[in-house]
Order: sequence, then C-alpha cells, then structure tokens
Amino acid sequence: MTAEMDAVSPPSRLAEPEEGISAEELQLAARNHGLPLEALRFDVTPPGLHYLLTHYDIPVVDPDEFRLVVDGLIDTPLSLDLDAIRNRPRVSTVVTMECAGNGRALLRPRPVSQPWLVEAVGTSRWTGSPLAQLLREAGVHNGSVDVVFTGADHGIERGVEQNYQRSLPVTEAMREDVLLAYEMNGGPLPPQHGYPLRLVVPGWYGMAHVKWLTGINLVADRFDGFQMHAYSLRQQPEEHGVLLTRIEPRALLAPPGFPDFMSRTRVLRSGRITVEGRAWSGWAPIRAVDVSIDGGDTWTSAKLEPAPHRWGWARWTWIWEATVGSYLLSARASDRSGRSQPVDQPWNRGGFANNLVQRVPVAVIS
Amino acid sequence: MTAEMDAVSPPSRLAEPEEGISAEELQLAARNHGLPLEALRFDVTPPGLHYLLTHYDIPVVDPDEFRLVVDGLIDTPLSLDLDAIRNRPRVSTVVTMECAGNGRALLRPRPVSQPWLVEAVGTSRWTGSPLAQLLREAGVHNGSVDVVFTGADHGIERGVEQNYQRSLPVTEAMREDVLLAYEMNGGPLPPQHGYPLRLVVPGWYGMAHVKWLTGINLVADRFDGFQMHAYSLRQQPEEHGVLLTRIEPRALLAPPGFPDFMSRTRVLRSGRITVEGRAWSGWAPIRAVDVSIDGGDTWTSAKLEPAPHRWGWARWTWIWEATVGSYLLSARASDRSGRSQPVDQPWNRGGFANNLVQRVPVAVIS
Repeated sequence: MTAEMDAVSPPSRLAEPEEGISAEELQLAARNHGLPLEALRFDVTPPGLHYLLTHYDIPVVDPDEFRLVVDGLIDTPLSLDLDAIRNRPRVSTVVTMECAGNGRALLRPRPVSQPWLVEAVGTSRWTGSPLAQLLREAGVHNGSVDVVFTGADHGIERGVEQNYQRSLPVTEAMREDVLLAYEMNGGPLPPQHGYPLRLVVPGWYGMAHVKWLTGINLVADRFDGFQMHAYSLRQQPEEHGVLLTRIEPRALLAPPGFPDFMSRTRVLRSGRITVEGRAWSGWAPIRAVDVSIDGGDTWTSAKLEPAPHRWGWARWTWIWEATVGSYLLSARASDRSGRSQPVDQPWNRGGFANNLVQRVPVAVIS
Repeated sequence: MTAEMDAVSPPSRLAEPEEGISAEELQLAARNHGLPLEALRFDVTPPGLHYLLTHYDIPVVDPDEFRLVVDGLIDTPLSLDLDAIRNRPRVSTVVTMECAGNGRALLRPRPVSQPWLVEAVGTSRWTGSPLAQLLREAGVHNGSVDVVFTGADHGIERGVEQNYQRSLPVTEAMREDVLLAYEMNGGPLPPQHGYPLRLVVPGWYGMAHVKWLTGINLVADRFDGFQMHAYSLRQQPEEHGVLLTRIEPRALLAPPGFPDFMSRTRVLRSGRITVEGRAWSGWAPIRAVDVSIDGGDTWTSAKLEPAPHRWGWARWTWIWEATVGSYLLSARASDRSGRSQPVDQPWNRGGFANNLVQRVPVAVIS
C-alpha cells in the first residue's frame, strides 16, 4: 500500500524557474477560492465570498448521527450531540481568517501547492460555545500539554493517509474566545465551512480552525501529527521548522476603478477618489496603514478607522488625486506588536505567511 | 484612450503548446470557482458551492436606489423598483446552470481565459417573476426581434469598455419559464449571484442569465454587442461564429473514495461501491448515462433516476465491484434530442461548450 500511496501522492516540490501554474495547482484553484477583492468593502464577508480551502473532500456529516468526542487527559470524557452543544453558553465573535498559504503563488521559487495570490482571507461572524468552559467542566488534568482536534475530512497528503488533525497548546485552547462554532453569519455553517461544527481560534491562521470537528483529545506531549509538520516554516525539507500560529499583519486595497476581464488591470478615470481597504493582524491591533502609488518607493499615511471588532479587520481610506498615468498601488500594515509587512518576499519552503505588500497596477485615463 | 485600453486589454490568444497556466488565468481562477465535485451529491447546490464567474467586479447595488428600466419597442416603458417586482406573480424553478467556458482548460491548444476544467456547474432553486407576463402587459411591438439585457457590472474586455449585455430572441424571452429572479435557494440573491435581480433562462449556458440586471430593451434588429461575438463558436478569430445558446449534455461523477490533497487522484478500498453522479442537457431530458472504467474503451449502462425538476440535473448510479488496480473512470450522457458527449475534444477558439467526457483516475487498493 505504501508504494501505491507514494505513486498518487508524491513529496512536495518547488516549481522550476519558468514553470507556469501546473494542472495540479489549477485543480486546487478551481475548487478552492479566495475573496474577490472588491468584497473588501463588506465589513462582514457574505459566506460564498469568504476564502475557502478544503484539504480533502467536503465530508457529508449526518447531524443526527453527529457526536463530538472529548477524551484523553480529562476527568469526564464526553460524547456530545449537536443539541448538547447548542444548549451550552452561546457567544458570537467577528473574526478575520486567513489561509497560512496566502501569497504562496507569488513566491520565487514557487512552492507547488494551493496557488494563492493575496486573496485567501475573509471576515465572518461565528457563533458557538466557548471551548474553555467545556474543558474546565470536564476537568483537564495537570500535565496536559496539547489539545488535538480531529476533523471528519479524510484523504492522503504527501503519502500519509489521515483525517485532518491540528493541535493547540492547552494555554491557547483555554483562551476564553476560542469557539466550538455552529453558525456563520447567523445561519447554520455551510457544508464547506465545517457543518455541523468547527473550531474558531481568533488571530490564528486558518489551519488551526479545524472544520467538521468530531474529536478533542488532551495529550501529555507536543502533538506531532502530519499537519503540524506541514504547516511549519522551514528553508529546507529536512528542517524541523517553526510551527505556524498567528496571522502576520497585512493590508489589502479594494482595487479602484474597473477591471479588464483578463488581465484584471484596473482602469480609473482621473480625479479625486477614495481608495479603501482593510488591514488586520493576529498579533496585535493595527497601528498604521501606509499607501504607495509608485511601487513602494514613497509612502504616505492612510486614514485608519478603529476596527469594529477585536478580531476583525480595520477599514482604512486614502484620498487620491489621480492624474493620467500608470501606477502601482500598495498598502502596508503595521501592528502594535511592532510587526509590519515586508517589501521583500519572506520565502520559506511551504510558502507560508507571505505577507509581502500587495501590488495593484492601475491605469488612470482622462 | 484606445491605445491605453489596448495596453491593459490585449486581444485573446491561444496558449503555447507547453505553456503552463499563466498568471492572468490564475488570477481568474483564484476569484471565480467551480463546484467541488463531491457536492454533486446535493440535489440543490448550497450557494457558496455553486460555480461562479464574474466578468468584471461584483457591483454594489443599493436596493433602495435600484430600478429595472424596460424600454425600446414597447407600449408602456417601465421603471420598476424591487417592491414592484416582488409584488408581481412569484414562481420558483430549480435550474442546472453551467458556464459556456466549462472544459476550456482541457482543450489543446488552450484558449487563454477563465481556466475551467469540468466543474463550472451548479443547481439552484431560483425564485422570481416570469418575464413573459411583464413583457405582455407592457405590450411588445410587432417587429421586435431581440431583447437586450444589461447588467450593472462594468469593465473592459479585449479593449472594449462595457456593461455586461446579452440578448435573447423575443421568442426565447417570451418563454413562460424565463425569470426575473430575486431569490436563490430561499434567501435573497447573494451579491455574487446578481443581487438584487438577475435573469434566469433555464436550459441556456450561464452567459444568458444576466446578473445585476438593470435594463431590458426591445430592439428591431439582432443585437450584436460584444458578448454576443465573445460567446460564439468559431475556429478562426475572423469568423462571424455561431451564437452559444443551450447547454450541451454532460455527465459528471462524484469522484469515489478519498483524494490526495495535491494530485486529487482518488484512492478507494476494494469492494462493492456505488458510483454516483449527475447528468444534464439544455436541449432535452437525459435519456441514458454510460460508465467506463478503462478510459472509454468499453462502456456499461448506469441506472438513471428521473430528474426531479424539468431544468435540474438527473442523478445516476452504478454499482462497481472494484478490485485492486488503476482505473480511469468516465461517464457519458445522451439526451432525447440525440445529442451525446464526444470522446474527442470539440475544439473552438473561445473554448466553449467542451463537453468531452470527464476522466477521473482512481487507484483501488486492498
């Protein structure tokens, strides 16, 4: 079976210098999708516009058969049906979520995987029950180190058959704002966003927000499952790597004017316009957004609005007296932890956390 | 201005023989998306899983400011707000919709545009008011030839600045099942599916179902706007071409087993399984679906279920006694008009209506 698995599931690779997007990358791009950038104008992203990454298939989960099993280093192991979860304390939180692989397809060399440009982001109102309360009631043992979350989605990745699994350190899992979410924007979770139950870990990249959640297991050692290694920063395949956790700061602008269908280049009539966008960071609130129209040679401050929600993005605006010519628009976010977006690519072998500033070509016409 | 437009919006082209998917094609693939094929298991596609193609930007339409203007060769020109449309007779119809460009990225040579593989399809319940009744009440003049529909989405395409516009012959527009739709699956239209109003033309490819509909104009001549030429079948750029209308027959199978993350190759444990999928045609009801496990060398009949809705897809199943080995699964639909899917690519320069049979590699393991 290993040889068969290896044949359908080879190791990861980097694209050749001149290699276009491959048939395999296109298959992923055709089924997963990003936020159309004009939808940055919405405070809360409509569900079908929120970015979506599914590692394997979207599983079909029968809500009547569904059970969340909580076990491991805990006084009272649990098997909860949906009603039991829905009858627990209910909280809503607006959260900006971003795929850790956002920006991957812009890296040189390009790691061959889901080929995101800059659009793998979205902001939703998630409703569910706080995980910490459930764990406290069940009695987490001293000596528990990691909480392992298991999803119902099943597949193979780089030769390893698995259900999707990721862990959080117990201290993170016990944060009051980590949710067992069963609603998105006021309705049941859509199938592709984890129906009937998913984890929401505000501030962390998407890989931590386990969808189709069926199991929570408390363990005495650092969990070293496949997805922990996969979602790590490393320069060489043999490195142990640094685990991905929180979202690096990023600003995106809603591209002004109107697009060309094929090139997506923006065309704008000259005059005064308000350029707008959003900025976010999983480390700390956004402190400033700067804007450039010359590809990053010079920067000027945008007007930053207070983020309406602790874990949601902040809107920013900038008045531009646009005159005829060709421009390269960028925005650059800095947060209160001292982090800001790089102007040179932060390369790593998995293509993660590439928060290089966005570059939007704009042709201003008379 | 023309030179500037040409610079951002060059003519269409064919990919070079060995050319991978280009950065421009990837930009389109990252924002538009197909149906994840496992979602063929749903009778009616959840909104965020339905295929989506937006030519320009998703426009923001203020529902209070919205007016549908009906004019041209008509006794009573109209300007209707949303309430006026919602207060008219209300009808719901389940419709399978497919992009005319579905299958484009599999063609050799490959026309460079939205790079669909096979997944640009979805089935929804659309609710709205019949267009024919509205037009009859307003009094269509004898001598009207085409009905031109204008959307609010604005952009440039192959050098031409435009709002999206497509026409129907008056005889098609007067079909009782053509809808001015304001709901999808029981809720308001999502922004990306045409909020607040779109056209639904059961049986026709997606280009006819004009989204963000703001204008209906009756004209005395065949409309020859940009999108009529764009959505035509031609072998050479200078040909006039044949207008695209109805959906060619197609069957797709929900890939069995589970996938490899990157290659999407399917892995299945040996034994008896039910392979299932859907089939549809805009020309006539589906008559038969045949299945092959050897890449089309031999075919066997699948069990076809009656389509639950006149314009929705039909489910089919096939029992497979899967033994260890490598297979290439295909399904092939035939409809009652005598049309069936080709086994050689039906090439044309725009990459339209490529209903070549799907090929799904499956590794059966013990």
